Amino acid sequence: MGALVQRSPHPADFPAPPSPRELARWVESDRAERPVRLARLRARLATDGLDAYFGLRPENMRYLTGFILHDGEERLAGNSGRFVVSGEEVVVVADSRYRLQAAEQAPDARIQPTTHDLAALWPALVSGVGARRVAVEAAALSHELWEELRLAAPGVELVPVSGWVEADRAIKTPTEVERIRAACGVADRSLASTLRRIQPGVTERELAMALEWEMRTGGAEALAFGIACLAGPNAALPHGSPSDREVQFGQVLLFDFGAMVAGYRSDMTRTLFVGDPNPRDLAVYELVAQAQEAALNLLAASARGDLPVPTGIEADAAARNVIEMAGYGERFGHGTGHGIGLATHELPTLSRVAPDAPLPSPTVFSVEPGVYLDGETGVRIEDLVLLDVADHVMERLTAFPREVLVVGV
Amino acid sequence: MGALVQRSPHPADFPAPPSPRELARWVESDRAERPVRLARLRARLATDGLDAYFGLRPENMRYLTGFILHDGEERLAGNSGRFVVSGEEVVVVADSRYRLQAAEQAPDARIQPTTHDLAALWPALVSGVGARRVAVEAAALSHELWEELRLAAPGVELVPVSGWVEADRAIKTPTEVERIRAACGVADRSLASTLRRIQPGVTERELAMALEWEMRTGGAEALAFGIACLAGPNAALPHGSPSDREVQFGQVLLFDFGAMVAGYRSDMTRTLFVGDPNPRDLAVYELVAQAQEAALNLLAASARGDLPVPTGIEADAAARNVIEMAGYGERFGHGTGHGIGLATHELPTLSRVAPDAPLPSPTVFSVEPGVYLDGETGVRIEDLVLLDVADHVMERLTAFPREVLVVGV
Repeated sequence: MGALVQRSPHPADFPAPPSPRELARWVESDRAERPVRLARLRARLATDGLDAYFGLRPENMRYLTGFILHDGEERLAGNSGRFVVSGEEVVVVADSRYRLQAAEQAPDARIQPTTHDLAALWPALVSGVGARRVAVEAAALSHELWEELRLAAPGVELVPVSGWVEADRAIKTPTEVERIRAACGVADRSLASTLRRIQPGVTERELAMALEWEMRTGGAEALAFGIACLAGPNAALPHGSPSDREVQFGQVLLFDFGAMVAGYRSDMTRTLFVGDPNPRDLAVYELVAQAQEAALNLLAASARGDLPVPTGIEADAAARNVIEMAGYGERFGHGTGHGIGLATHELPTLSRVAPDAPLPSPTVFSVEPGVYLDGETGVRIEDLVLLDVADHVMERLTAFPREVLVVGV
Repeated sequence: MGALVQRSPHPADFPAPPSPRELARWVESDRAERPVRLARLRARLATDGLDAYFGLRPENMRYLTGFILHDGEERLAGNSGRFVVSGEEVVVVADSRYRLQAAEQAPDARIQPTTHDLAALWPALVSGVGARRVAVEAAALSHELWEELRLAAPGVELVPVSGWVEADRAIKTPTEVERIRAACGVADRSLASTLRRIQPGVTERELAMALEWEMRTGGAEALAFGIACLAGPNAALPHGSPSDREVQFGQVLLFDFGAMVAGYRSDMTRTLFVGDPNPRDLAVYELVAQAQEAALNLLAASARGDLPVPTGIEADAAARNVIEMAGYGERFGHGTGHGIGLATHELPTLSRVAPDAPLPSPTVFSVEPGVYLDGETGVRIEDLVLLDVADHVMERLTAFPREVLVVGV
């Protein structure tokens, strides 16, 4: 760790973006996997004595029905895409704007026309599938709509449930991992393509735009989230947005970004050195790299079978202890990692408040310790990791080098 | 109407993007206007016998506190930005990632550190401002969190409220109109810059990317929403996403898009003709243009004082009647317009289900009738309009020509 990269990464070091054939294959694999996903949900409904599941989260829509809402579109889509799964049926509601799209993307569902007024439709919707006790995504449904639905069909019991589909989504199939891997490849390659633009005087915003453009013309259907490009002291803002601040020699430059490929997301952070690293920044980098390595080592040992599969708390602690021992515990305010897939942040959670149970497997999550010195500097190193205990695999899906990388010279 | 544009619009026909000085002035004007906004909210709280307001909508955060979450960021921001307004105080909660940002953007608020667990903080948060009865944005708060807060402080009454701040936001100040006008200018200019790229064989996705690039390098801090660029029969999908479909001679090409400038958004739709218009498309265009003109005429007459200010139902009917009389009523499935400002869709509503009350004033909204023939073609024409009854103003803020425009030749 801490060694300088021998040469600057080149775009050709990383895989080419997915071909149209691969994209088409993933659409098919999703359709083929959906019955398995639905069967799991139906088994859970049966166990809990419930008749149907009412879902609203865009990620769950896509996972269970195939209907796609792009990021932010849920604000404009009204009720479109909300769905009911019963023992026999999948029903996707769609207003007039989304009718054709729903029929195309959710070919195995019944499309139920709706207006802006879901409560008016609710009694017919639930009686149409014979449901009396309905599991509801209560963390995604507003309290206002909950009350409207409750009053619209007083004989139907609404049962708040949380994390059911999310727990299933944490377990990744091979074709899901393929897509996350492809999204990591697009991101790796795009950062490599952007390196030559990094010079003193270029702004955070200009670099973020350049990186975005590389991703979106290089295989990403969208960004996984807004790019963070933070220079010098701005890197101490763990979720700051790019500003007009100019890159300067002797400062760090932090990129936190990800691509979306066929619905699946990547997420990576690299903290680069513009010109000669200053010793303080280098020391912080070394510490963060050691913390990340400690977590990766624990995960690798558990994949080999040398150690039990850690909980999210234990995986977090492996990284956190390194930073705490160095006296910087207060400067690492966030968790060590989060699952990723159809959502950028999903289960599992690697943090001090994670569940006290072994991590699921096979699963994909980030390992991203950081140290932030307000007003001075910040360093985070983030990779996605595939953990597959049964296959004895612990693999970094992010291929961009983690060693100290000096740019702009 | 229906006349051909004499020459293709040129970017220089439209205003230059706002200067850094204007952007800085708008930050100041927002800060200066916030006490007025807060005073309105506090008066409403007092009228209803409530002690505090708990808000979660990003638009309301920005409007009342200054704290900014970018589109989609609310999924990753946890509780950061959620706020409480009491008679004396404004409190913005922020987790460790957002602490510095909150202090900078909301300088007149108290910043309350939080974790992911808002319920744990809730009793201290409400007792800290002396609140026993709290108005809650129940359409933005999940049912799950509602229950957690209710159980965390059983002595505090949660009162669901809806549309309070939204109704205030529908009324626009001059500096808010300036920003929407600037966003319209960026969009107009960017479409003019994109026209030269329209040729048979170019894809919807390529044109959408080109238009996005023009906006984001031409004064837009972000898109107002994902660009719709829909060729030929795809234009019948009122909210379709750009595909790899190629533009063809003899077909329509529909762009629905908007820019964001200093937090405020624009929204416009133009349906262009690639090569010689086919007579069916031209007839549909003429009909939609007449429908839009009918609504604009009604609004202009009310601004002059010749007619009472219409309700949203009446303004919608003015456009809808034209389309229904021509036998295409079933092909116009959405409302005629929506307010716009910090959100792309906000009050007022121009539709069959709008409130039976005169439109507010001064206000800004879209006028966007459309006719969609499934599998064949679609036409929508959308402009933003400023209605200021007291000043006798009805002004199109969208300056791009509405006449038939032939491109690609």
